[in-house]
Amino acid sequence: MNFRMTGYILGLLLIFEGAFMAVPTLTAAVYREPQIRLFALIALCCLAAGFIITRFKPQNKSLFARDGFVIVALSWIVLSVIGALPFYISGCIPRFVDALFESVSGFTTTGASILHTLEGMPKCMLMWRSFTHWVGGMGVLVFIMALLPIAGGQNMYLMKAESPGPSVSKLVPRVKKTAMLLYVIYFVMTVIEFVLLLIGGMPIFDAINIAVATAGTGGFSCDPAGMPYSPFCINVITVFMFLFGVNFTCYYLFILRKFKEGFTEELKVYLGIIVFAIVTVTLDIRHLPMFSGTGEALMHGAFTVGSLLSSTGFATVDFNLFPEYSRTLLVMLMFVGACAGSTGGGIKVSRCIIFFKHMHNELGIMTHPRQVRTLKMDGHPVDQEVTRSVSVYFACYILIYVVSMIVLSFDQLDLTTNFTAVVATLDNIGPGLNMVGPTSNFDVFSTGSKCMLIFDMLAGRLELFPIVLLLTPATWKK
Amino acid sequence: MNFRMTGYILGLLLIFEGAFMAVPTLTAAVYREPQIRLFALIALCCLAAGFIITRFKPQNKSLFARDGFVIVALSWIVLSVIGALPFYISGCIPRFVDALFESVSGFTTTGASILHTLEGMPKCMLMWRSFTHWVGGMGVLVFIMALLPIAGGQNMYLMKAESPGPSVSKLVPRVKKTAMLLYVIYFVMTVIEFVLLLIGGMPIFDAINIAVATAGTGGFSCDPAGMPYSPFCINVITVFMFLFGVNFTCYYLFILRKFKEGFTEELKVYLGIIVFAIVTVTLDIRHLPMFSGTGEALMHGAFTVGSLLSSTGFATVDFNLFPEYSRTLLVMLMFVGACAGSTGGGIKVSRCIIFFKHMHNELGIMTHPRQVRTLKMDGHPVDQEVTRSVSVYFACYILIYVVSMIVLSFDQLDLTTNFTAVVATLDNIGPGLNMVGPTSNFDVFSTGSKCMLIFDMLAGRLELFPIVLLLTPATWKK
Repeated sequence: MNFRMTGYILGLLLIFEGAFMAVPTLTAAVYREPQIRLFALIALCCLAAGFIITRFKPQNKSLFARDGFVIVALSWIVLSVIGALPFYISGCIPRFVDALFESVSGFTTTGASILHTLEGMPKCMLMWRSFTHWVGGMGVLVFIMALLPIAGGQNMYLMKAESPGPSVSKLVPRVKKTAMLLYVIYFVMTVIEFVLLLIGGMPIFDAINIAVATAGTGGFSCDPAGMPYSPFCINVITVFMFLFGVNFTCYYLFILRKFKEGFTEELKVYLGIIVFAIVTVTLDIRHLPMFSGTGEALMHGAFTVGSLLSSTGFATVDFNLFPEYSRTLLVMLMFVGACAGSTGGGIKVSRCIIFFKHMHNELGIMTHPRQVRTLKMDGHPVDQEVTRSVSVYFACYILIYVVSMIVLSFDQLDLTTNFTAVVATLDNIGPGLNMVGPTSNFDVFSTGSKCMLIFDMLAGRLELFPIVLLLTPATWKK
Repeated sequence: MNFRMTGYILGLLLIFEGAFMAVPTLTAAVYREPQIRLFALIALCCLAAGFIITRFKPQNKSLFARDGFVIVALSWIVLSVIGALPFYISGCIPRFVDALFESVSGFTTTGASILHTLEGMPKCMLMWRSFTHWVGGMGVLVFIMALLPIAGGQNMYLMKAESPGPSVSKLVPRVKKTAMLLYVIYFVMTVIEFVLLLIGGMPIFDAINIAVATAGTGGFSCDPAGMPYSPFCINVITVFMFLFGVNFTCYYLFILRKFKEGFTEELKVYLGIIVFAIVTVTLDIRHLPMFSGTGEALMHGAFTVGSLLSSTGFATVDFNLFPEYSRTLLVMLMFVGACAGSTGGGIKVSRCIIFFKHMHNELGIMTHPRQVRTLKMDGHPVDQEVTRSVSVYFACYILIYVVSMIVLSFDQLDLTTNFTAVVATLDNIGPGLNMVGPTSNFDVFSTGSKCMLIFDMLAGRLELFPIVLLLTPATWKK
């Protein structure tokens, strides 16, 4: 382990987190809220601590794979703890574990909340809550790397450890430029959504909040009434939820007019799932009394599918009341999640594709043992290392799932609540079913369960390995 | 595909199924029940058809891996369809799909029932129902192989395809002798349990039924009141449920006084799970009003753990009413299941061990890429083929689970019911939770869902691959 380098990067992180606090500070200034001092103070402390720590530049900048995992895991823990301070110190969330839950939920773009109501919450707090989604969506270390050269040529390990999906395709040879490109696409898309929402008549504060929360596929709402917006706005949000669930590499390729390469196998499957889910859910829910007709059912059905598949977690209707087919399908979409290399959570479409292609190949080998089969994606053979890491991912996923279910079971809630609470946090979605459905919140759980779910959210956002490896003794051996 | 050989083995199967029918015929004779003619008639038809078919001996007796899978899958389908005839023709179960459900549930040792009550059911039918557990437990083709040389040296493929667990260890070089040994151990253990139950004061009819149902880890009860037996009998059943969940190879090694080899890693983990589960469940349920004290809680707790871990599915109490921790843990035990090479169902302890050892190894490789690690069980390296087939098994398992959940969701029952109904059938356990809990039955489902669950029971008993491969187009290609 390169401890000096780890400390240095955590120092950089503090500086950036201090800078991010400018957003809520500014909001507090605009709305003349008293919390402005608190945000300014925390920001200054972060900046000061960060500058002091980064004065000690490490001689040895080399990083190995495990350094990458550990640095990313620690960064996210520090990020979340500091992110929780405004909620806790201001008294907006009186218990620290709840504040941490909300902060982790924000940065990991989960959007699960322990708040019973948003009534009376200062706008700067709401803005900070939503803005954490935006920072967490594309990754904070990716953001730092977009602006600074951190570790010479070796920060690919950091990028790999923080980015969603089984493997990162470098867009361009230099990591810094890749990170920059990702953030530019991300920023431009967020701005376009913001403008469209304004055109749809949404108040400016809400439009910023919703745009950044959609971009990060987060799911924190900013209106106590939920989503009281016009059908136009709802449809804009639906489309952008789907768009932010697409691998950003595809957008880069589209910009370069490489349409054939950009239209990847994963994207096709993702679109196929979307169409299938929207059609069948709409057919299933169109007779519910909560909808006036098929048109309305389609709008809310598409919104719900987009919200859960992209792991955003917004809700315009209580999908807990949907018929059992839709409920079951939606839970499955939660597991699948968005594309790799997007801001969305879940297992990721490409990982599922590799998993089932692998299955198909192996079944073929069972009946025809002498055949040689290679696993291909988009016509290229998939690296064996990737296939193996996908299998391990599923094993870790199941293990974390089992442990979480056991811990949650002590709270005496029902199985569906616990089962969907774990998938909602581990896949960074937000709401689940029953007691954690869209009209409820996660305050039903005990402190122990909340800690477990905080772990799940962090593990889910970082694709399990960094957090799991942080806890594995072998990582700390020489 | 060697179609002639397939037909020949199916012919043998008919002869044996006809012979098995002697058991209910005899029961009908003892209790002077009118169904004696029906059983005798079906038996004679099976024998006649079987003898005619097996007159045509195939010239080419060679079998390949895929022949093994296909033959086993077809054999079990034929076995179940004929096994359903007595229920259907006698009118005891008026609908054929229900009769087939009951028959498949019997042979696959699931023990899930669509019957609302056993009141008025003839004793010969009850005996046939329980006896199918005994036949299915160790495998019908294994039984045939124990008595006849089927396919020269190549019937290892049949044994592999029918035996539970990731790999079959040949006890002795010759398959016939291995099959014989397994059945001798199986038979002797069944008789010992039967005698102990008689000593415990159980009526002889019940003792036979319960003994064969425990041996096959089935779970069909024969008393309309459930399990109204003495604590001694309950404890005997508990112990034998655990014993029949042990790999039979261990018993063989114990008989040879090879205690060190017999006490395998899988057995240790299995015992560890048992102790952990009994202790924690007892602590969790000891204050429930249904128990008079910790002693009674321990007895029923141990019984329930044994019943679900070994996939037997007997119930002395309604574990649906247990606290959430116990319910959650029991569902997990359902998934894990018994040891490989036992009569129990589930994913199997050894498969779980391989899965998580594989995970641990790969995580180690992530942090220390240059290390070489081999996966070992009982000190011996595990064949790469086995590790791979375990991964594929999990992929198939998840895929079947997903499809089943979707099909069941159209019945508008709750998620816990569907979720546990699938695990209860796919892992050949019997009861689930909520609407399919121990005091309910599977008649709540529609015909379509019942067909799905029939598929799940067959797939689960045959460890997925034979049934999945039967449906894969590649299997039928030259």
